[in-house]
Amino acid sequence: MHRTHTCGELTLADLGKTVTLSGWVQKSRDLGGMTFIDVRDRYGITQLTFNADDDASLRTSARELGREYVIKVTGEVIERSNKNSKIPTGDIEIKVSNLEILNAAKLPPFTIEDETDGGDDIRMKFRYLDLRRNPVRENLILRHRTSQEVRRYLDSQHFLEVETPYLIKSTPEGARDFVVPSRMNSGEFYALPQSPQTFKQLLMVSGFDRYFQIVKCFRDEDLRADRQPEFTQIDCEMSFVEQEDVLNIFEGLAKHIFKTIKGIDLGSVPRMTYADAMRLYGSDKPDIRFGMQFVELNDVAKEKGFPVFDAAELVVGINAENCALYTRKQLDALTDFIKRPQIGATGLVYARVNEDGSVKSSVDKFFSPEQLAAIADKFHAKPGDLLLIMAGSKDKVRKQLNELRLEVATQLGLRNKDTFAPLWVIDFPLLEWDEDNARYHAMHHPFTSPKPEDIPLLDTNPGEVRANAYDFVLNGVEVGGGSIRIHDKELQSLMFKHLGFSPEEAQKQFGFLMEAFTYGAPPHGGLAFGFDRLVSLLAGLDSIRDVIAFPKNNSGRDIMIDAPSTIHQEQLDELSLKIDIK
Amino acid sequence: MHRTHTCGELTLADLGKTVTLSGWVQKSRDLGGMTFIDVRDRYGITQLTFNADDDASLRTSARELGREYVIKVTGEVIERSNKNSKIPTGDIEIKVSNLEILNAAKLPPFTIEDETDGGDDIRMKFRYLDLRRNPVRENLILRHRTSQEVRRYLDSQHFLEVETPYLIKSTPEGARDFVVPSRMNSGEFYALPQSPQTFKQLLMVSGFDRYFQIVKCFRDEDLRADRQPEFTQIDCEMSFVEQEDVLNIFEGLAKHIFKTIKGIDLGSVPRMTYADAMRLYGSDKPDIRFGMQFVELNDVAKEKGFPVFDAAELVVGINAENCALYTRKQLDALTDFIKRPQIGATGLVYARVNEDGSVKSSVDKFFSPEQLAAIADKFHAKPGDLLLIMAGSKDKVRKQLNELRLEVATQLGLRNKDTFAPLWVIDFPLLEWDEDNARYHAMHHPFTSPKPEDIPLLDTNPGEVRANAYDFVLNGVEVGGGSIRIHDKELQSLMFKHLGFSPEEAQKQFGFLMEAFTYGAPPHGGLAFGFDRLVSLLAGLDSIRDVIAFPKNNSGRDIMIDAPSTIHQEQLDELSLKIDIK
Repeated sequence: MHRTHTCGELTLADLGKTVTLSGWVQKSRDLGGMTFIDVRDRYGITQLTFNADDDASLRTSARELGREYVIKVTGEVIERSNKNSKIPTGDIEIKVSNLEILNAAKLPPFTIEDETDGGDDIRMKFRYLDLRRNPVRENLILRHRTSQEVRRYLDSQHFLEVETPYLIKSTPEGARDFVVPSRMNSGEFYALPQSPQTFKQLLMVSGFDRYFQIVKCFRDEDLRADRQPEFTQIDCEMSFVEQEDVLNIFEGLAKHIFKTIKGIDLGSVPRMTYADAMRLYGSDKPDIRFGMQFVELNDVAKEKGFPVFDAAELVVGINAENCALYTRKQLDALTDFIKRPQIGATGLVYARVNEDGSVKSSVDKFFSPEQLAAIADKFHAKPGDLLLIMAGSKDKVRKQLNELRLEVATQLGLRNKDTFAPLWVIDFPLLEWDEDNARYHAMHHPFTSPKPEDIPLLDTNPGEVRANAYDFVLNGVEVGGGSIRIHDKELQSLMFKHLGFSPEEAQKQFGFLMEAFTYGAPPHGGLAFGFDRLVSLLAGLDSIRDVIAFPKNNSGRDIMIDAPSTIHQEQLDELSLKIDIK
Repeated sequence: MHRTHTCGELTLADLGKTVTLSGWVQKSRDLGGMTFIDVRDRYGITQLTFNADDDASLRTSARELGREYVIKVTGEVIERSNKNSKIPTGDIEIKVSNLEILNAAKLPPFTIEDETDGGDDIRMKFRYLDLRRNPVRENLILRHRTSQEVRRYLDSQHFLEVETPYLIKSTPEGARDFVVPSRMNSGEFYALPQSPQTFKQLLMVSGFDRYFQIVKCFRDEDLRADRQPEFTQIDCEMSFVEQEDVLNIFEGLAKHIFKTIKGIDLGSVPRMTYADAMRLYGSDKPDIRFGMQFVELNDVAKEKGFPVFDAAELVVGINAENCALYTRKQLDALTDFIKRPQIGATGLVYARVNEDGSVKSSVDKFFSPEQLAAIADKFHAKPGDLLLIMAGSKDKVRKQLNELRLEVATQLGLRNKDTFAPLWVIDFPLLEWDEDNARYHAMHHPFTSPKPEDIPLLDTNPGEVRANAYDFVLNGVEVGGGSIRIHDKELQSLMFKHLGFSPEEAQKQFGFLMEAFTYGAPPHGGLAFGFDRLVSLLAGLDSIRDVIAFPKNNSGRDIMIDAPSTIHQEQLDELSLKIDIK
């Protein structure tokens, strides 16, 4: 028996009990003839006391314990003279009568404290030590609790969790697959799923009605800070539904998670069309924790003699309320911000609304006071407001102003991580023009259904066709998305044609799905939430890496176990493979 | 809105309501001027009526519906004249006023009924249609419910579900890995996990204390009927535990599952040492739904002049109670059964106990009646019993008699699938002699701890060293197994040495784990349950394939989606690979 209690549960109610605890030495200090040791486990910290007067040799042993030693102690629960109200066990301590070292420990390469001195690389290499730190472990406990609540909710809504296969078929459409060579079928490969999309649709054809899965997915893409080659989705699909049905169910899921995990009542989730999101926020994932909506100014700003505005397709701005006192230096910094190559804007016009209501702008020589007043009026500006205006081609300037809006809001402290503002963005375009390949590709995926009334546009104006597709956006982050799917073989064939598939390619890759549609496929739709992203938002973190137990680095390596690595020649031979580095 | 209710919920309480249902046409029949259609969804079946007198054209449309058409109907709930007490909706029917075909269906290649006419291959190819059949869907619903209950129980016991990575490192020890070529690290490979073993041990080093995961694992082995290249485990690990602690927790899990899923009180699970299991049942996974324990007969059967017994290391038998009336033909069939090459026994001795207590055997000429009576006495045989006796080298004859015992029990109907007899088999040997490679390998895995008192035997008699390893056996099937792990670097190094690893190999493959042990590793242990196997037992099935939504065939192929398959040359080039079939 290694313990009778954990290190987080003893209180004054346990006074006088003889207990056994096991855990790690958090810290140790001497005070006169006494040694105090904090012993730690997942559940908490308990103070141990060793008194030289009671047992000098035991006390000597205690003094020799290093940080992170694993020990087992037996002793009596006594009341502390110096109580610590910050921890649940702070009223008691253990007067130790027996000490056993279960395992010694080398000095860790960084401190195991909430704030550590270890850099990223060393903490990745010794991830098992980083995971000992409270904030890291708390993130993973949050993840566990969230997954439990997701399952509880979806089970209560009659969803069935069905495991779909990991060894599937490579489909070159979309992102790059990880592939798995087959030994039993020489020269052939499985692929790891980028999502269980086709399988969940087949489950709908099977009549499963409501499916979900919390499932790993894989994409062999060049990694950015918040991408991982393997990631986790809450994947769902429903039959006999229209878009509203799906939104309502998963709005329910979001509310359940926030209620149970954060104690927050999320309220009802507003809906915004993609077109409105682009017009009002310049983004398909607007952060609506704050206002600062775009104001379009063509009618009041163009043809007044300012060449930049006159040449622009769109003049558009935001009102940074109460920011008229921004200094020249601050405004220059904002201008530099939007001129960075990543954003690529050419300039920023600003206008301050003075206390007397007059407007002072960076383009005063082109505009009369009345014209400036008309502009300010469009913003419903008040004295003390700062108007930030940009101009250019519609698509570009919206994206640029989106970046500026987020930057200003960050500076103003409007993006509080404890505030949660969810949003459904609906009516996404079906197709997206791909400059590189000079063709359209599916904005969501090839199985997304167009709005029936827009189908005629497929031949005349494909970019205008709207899809029954929707994203769940939280605080400016796309947490999930989905669509009502095509369930008709002819419409699916038409989609593949518009996406540039030959009938043969479509048949080879997705023939099984189209054939399934001919045996009685119900209308169906669904969505997937990015589980890593969702948990990172719940935890108030910027990176998904912090909510993954064993993440990979930006080169796709696990530097702790040193993977990937070379394999034996016999393994290659069995797989009929040769390495051929050019 | 596709439906107001499902096809499984309307009853007399809903009389008079106007409802909308969607589902599949299960069957259709005409009766006079009426057409009756059974519409089916996951939740049940509801009868629809179309009356030519009410609406002749609607009735005509209804007559044209084929099996498996997907339809949507609106109508009034009315009372049935011919009630069907077998289904919950059997008291009502829907008088249809509107019918819409949501999707037509070709005639399925096999009937979608509980008993189907489809062979294995066709049902695998059209798995999405096979999944429509009630028994198949019920298996997967059972699987869903079981996974929910597993999570509920383990969560209540403070286990944290932590996702471990799928892209890990290949370790040639054990079964063959599936590997995944890395594009970003040319010439290097990830491996898919055979189990999350090392990661869960690292989580213990991290202080996670109690970990679990329901997780896919992968083994590239030649497949047998009940093996799949990807399979699912309930994987668990606990810190500060001894063997008893682990057994108690997972006995609790088994009881919880049986109680909630089957309504069965499993009682407490008996424990049996590996040595006893081999001695009494000739198997490390005895089926204890019935007795028929082995009786060893050396002292009464040897040196009586029967050369076969005299030459044997062990004479051992079972008592098939009340089987004295087995015919000569039946006994010959049993003899043929054990002589099959898979079993390889040379012969079977039988002895009948007559009504008068005398014994009539197949070896009467070698044994006196008194000697035969002494043998029967060892079996505590009664008049009417049949004794079946075999002889040979200890290990071989035990295995052979095990097969005979199971065969006889099957013939006698003692292996009822609705009876559940769980068992812990404990104290497994640490090492197993590997004839092919003339060395020992780990019977469980290299991380299993030897019993401390047996460690000295490692050098003198390695085969006798017992491990802190245990299996959970249910009805003669190994459902799961685990061990107390090594948590000390020196002992782990010693184990690797005994398993034939050079220090360099051990360091290259498991250096990270041994290093982790030097930073304060707690005593820990755990186990894994085969989830597919567990669910198949709960469902009373012989094959795990029936509880997997999309299984692979015996060549590791998914014949529905046609995977594995060839990939594009560009994919190979990006991975720096060449196919090289010899």
